[in-house]
Amino acid sequence: MLVQAILNRKGSEVITVSRDATIEQAARIMSEHKVGALVVTLGDEVVGILSHREVVSGLARHRDRLSTVPVSELMRREVVSVSPQEHIKRVMMLMTRHRTTHVPVLASERLVGIVSIGDVVKHRLEELELETNVLRDAYFAVR
Amino acid sequence: MLVQAILNRKGSEVITVSRDATIEQAARIMSEHKVGALVVTLGDEVVGILSHREVVSGLARHRDRLSTVPVSELMRREVVSVSPQEHIKRVMMLMTRHRTTHVPVLASERLVGIVSIGDVVKHRLEELELETNVLRDAYFAVR
Repeated sequence: MLVQAILNRKGSEVITVSRDATIEQAARIMSEHKVGALVVTLGDEVVGILSHREVVSGLARHRDRLSTVPVSELMRREVVSVSPQEHIKRVMMLMTRHRTTHVPVLASERLVGIVSIGDVVKHRLEELELETNVLRDAYFAVR
Repeated sequence: MLVQAILNRKGSEVITVSRDATIEQAARIMSEHKVGALVVTLGDEVVGILSHREVVSGLARHRDRLSTVPVSELMRREVVSVSPQEHIKRVMMLMTRHRTTHVPVLASERLVGIVSIGDVVKHRLEELELETNVLRDAYFAVR
């Protein structure tokens, strides 16, 4: 199953934030939109990603500067991304290896969606059901 | 594959917090221990769970009361838990249905571990590799 299959269902909306926004503003945007990560953009370019984890660590470290510390100071700069044509298994590998919960989807360097670890588990569950059925049929056909 | 298999590898350590701790303290404990959720306990009893998401929403809503709002005001009270003998697939279903990223593991009402959505994806990847090999062998055996 491909990343595109997840985007077909959930759509291509990605909540972005400027790198000059503050921790406090980022927390509010995440809560309002009920998302676990914001993609940090500069014009059309993806320059970072900010997940719940970075906000919590920002709160722990910058207690008295929540209205001044910018997103750029907390975001992860090495953004792991995939194309819509990649397999979801690869997304699982990237999430495990880089300990990340959200992977932006880029097509020709344009942001076309985001896949969360929750999306991956949900789709993997559906794929599991499908596999069980296909294998059962294949077994009886060969037998 | 069973929940016990995940615990065998990662161990049974669970970071807990009192329901009287503040948002600020909870954020610090999460950052120090590099965990995405704290189990809230009262004596030996599990009374709630607090994940990154609740801390971020606490920051968004209680900006000026971070040193006073207690964990009990933010935590999820309906804690979804599993036993060590349950299948990981069931954990995936529970995480999807309840939109939760961490599931405490209880044995005879005693807290014996916690499974994160990251653990689930990692183990599912390993299981996938194993399945591919088993199916390949089975196919050639039948053929």
